[in-house]
Amino acid sequence: MTTPNDLLLQVLAGKETPRPPVWLMRQAGRILPEYRAVRSRLSGFKELVETPELACEVTIQPVDLLGVDAAILFSDILVIPEAMGLPYQLIEKVGPRFEETISCKADLDRLHPVEPEEHLRYVMDAMRMTRAELDGRVPLIGFAGAPWTIFCYMVEGGGSKEWSKARRMLRSEPVLAEELLDRITEATILYLNAQVAAGAQVLQLFDSWAGALSAELFERYSMPRLKRICEEVKGAPLIVFAKGASWQLDRLAQLPCAALGIDWHTPISEARKRAPRHVLQGNLDPSVLYGTEAEVRAATQRMLSDFGRGGHVANLGHGVYPDINPDRVRDFIDEVKRSGH
Amino acid sequence: MTTPNDLLLQVLAGKETPRPPVWLMRQAGRILPEYRAVRSRLSGFKELVETPELACEVTIQPVDLLGVDAAILFSDILVIPEAMGLPYQLIEKVGPRFEETISCKADLDRLHPVEPEEHLRYVMDAMRMTRAELDGRVPLIGFAGAPWTIFCYMVEGGGSKEWSKARRMLRSEPVLAEELLDRITEATILYLNAQVAAGAQVLQLFDSWAGALSAELFERYSMPRLKRICEEVKGAPLIVFAKGASWQLDRLAQLPCAALGIDWHTPISEARKRAPRHVLQGNLDPSVLYGTEAEVRAATQRMLSDFGRGGHVANLGHGVYPDINPDRVRDFIDEVKRSGH
Repeated sequence: MTTPNDLLLQVLAGKETPRPPVWLMRQAGRILPEYRAVRSRLSGFKELVETPELACEVTIQPVDLLGVDAAILFSDILVIPEAMGLPYQLIEKVGPRFEETISCKADLDRLHPVEPEEHLRYVMDAMRMTRAELDGRVPLIGFAGAPWTIFCYMVEGGGSKEWSKARRMLRSEPVLAEELLDRITEATILYLNAQVAAGAQVLQLFDSWAGALSAELFERYSMPRLKRICEEVKGAPLIVFAKGASWQLDRLAQLPCAALGIDWHTPISEARKRAPRHVLQGNLDPSVLYGTEAEVRAATQRMLSDFGRGGHVANLGHGVYPDINPDRVRDFIDEVKRSGH
Repeated sequence: MTTPNDLLLQVLAGKETPRPPVWLMRQAGRILPEYRAVRSRLSGFKELVETPELACEVTIQPVDLLGVDAAILFSDILVIPEAMGLPYQLIEKVGPRFEETISCKADLDRLHPVEPEEHLRYVMDAMRMTRAELDGRVPLIGFAGAPWTIFCYMVEGGGSKEWSKARRMLRSEPVLAEELLDRITEATILYLNAQVAAGAQVLQLFDSWAGALSAELFERYSMPRLKRICEEVKGAPLIVFAKGASWQLDRLAQLPCAALGIDWHTPISEARKRAPRHVLQGNLDPSVLYGTEAEVRAATQRMLSDFGRGGHVANLGHGVYPDINPDRVRDFIDEVKRSGH
């Protein structure tokens, strides 16, 4: 039996460790041939998300094949709107598509509260199975989308560059918008607490579209709900990753969460200045992994040195791209691991 | 005859004015019913771009109908890759699509230098016609895409959220990437100088995807070419708008241009601190215009007061959205104009 690796838990608890733990957003799925082999046998991405045995298998692949210090459950942030009553499809090369969206009070009234063990049983089963299967080798991370990010999809019905329909609702129908955001927030709290009960040891909240909000909208619509989630979710340290929102890091630093994710646009020194008491996670530009081994190692060294010792979870500043060579990912991981010697 | 309004030229020349000039990115096209009337008679957006009489007509519409302090020629940044040898189509609700893209040296060798009066004659004719038609009422703005932004489209073949293919080329084929960027830069210099010869009195360089670059990539690939354009384009003040790149404002502030555009994510106080000697342009969140008249006026007041007196061109922090009520745009413009009293 291998020694349990709890580096991530230690760092998130504020302890000193010989080196930062390392994992990658989107490490499960996308880049590994072993993942593609599983995926190619299936009708689509959602079948994988909804089949606990398979979600468990691809969640553990990067632990075995890449040597990361944590597993993150293979799933999708859009399971929450679906559980609330808005089903979606993932269309190859296009992205998610919701047939129905929320544009008025009547739409809102068709949504229902989420019972995780009922509506999201497949996630809970996958979590239990993966936790058992990991057997303590590395911590297991659960996750959810932040309310604003989920709101974006529920209002727009799919991806968008500007999310102007979603922002239009904030400006023109603030009462409706607040109610939808509150419902998502409540569902997310139940969902994350259920993930902890099912075995998640760390949680990450993805606010992927935080960058679409001005400081004013972020403050009014997003901050109170992020804070509520931080306060109501218990039993596992929480990492809040608000992509594109680094100008709001001063505000994010007021959140009672264990760590803040930093995107790859944010200068590390600025992040440390704006959020001095939080563990920070990130932030290598994923495109560095398109370079040579030497370039990957040098860039990783620079990143480690910019973050300095302690209070750092090494990661990319965004999800890994599908066409990245897994060997370059291994070089990144290896370079972080070598920093402990 | 109305008194000529040269507020924009005065502010860009560093002079004091009773109030900031105001115009909107995407003011020509999109929101005006009078624009849609012209557009609906045509086969597509490109017919409008390529027909000087019509481009002239929709360029002047917002001067008459909204009361802006400048006209910006109705055109498209993608005319440059087309003039270099990569034709594109604009597909309704999807965006631009290039049939061929650049992925190797052979692709690059199929491109040719741009002769503006030959390959982009329709732009030059539209510029001359519009300048004559405006008859000095307000200054006429010309524009082009920045090299990195044009590079993105030429490599990806269409829009993208991450521009990871374009960034992959920077990382994995730096020599090829630099050559393509240099060719775009040379074409852009010729194009902008030709626009000045044809009547443009102000120029704006749109680096719409600057935000996809890390500080390191921005410094290596983008800065030297922005600088070269600033140095080689003569006869009209230049506004550089690098969207999503506010962490690079310290660097952009080294450019010898008249003004820097500020996106709506950037706190105005930070922009003033990082670029203290430049005129700044921006930066109202376009989604404010979805609100009520009172909200639009209050937000405009806050923006004006944050920029302070002088050295400011009032604008949105991004292009106006197609479904914005023109009356709210008028409220924004009116509020800026009232600030002079």
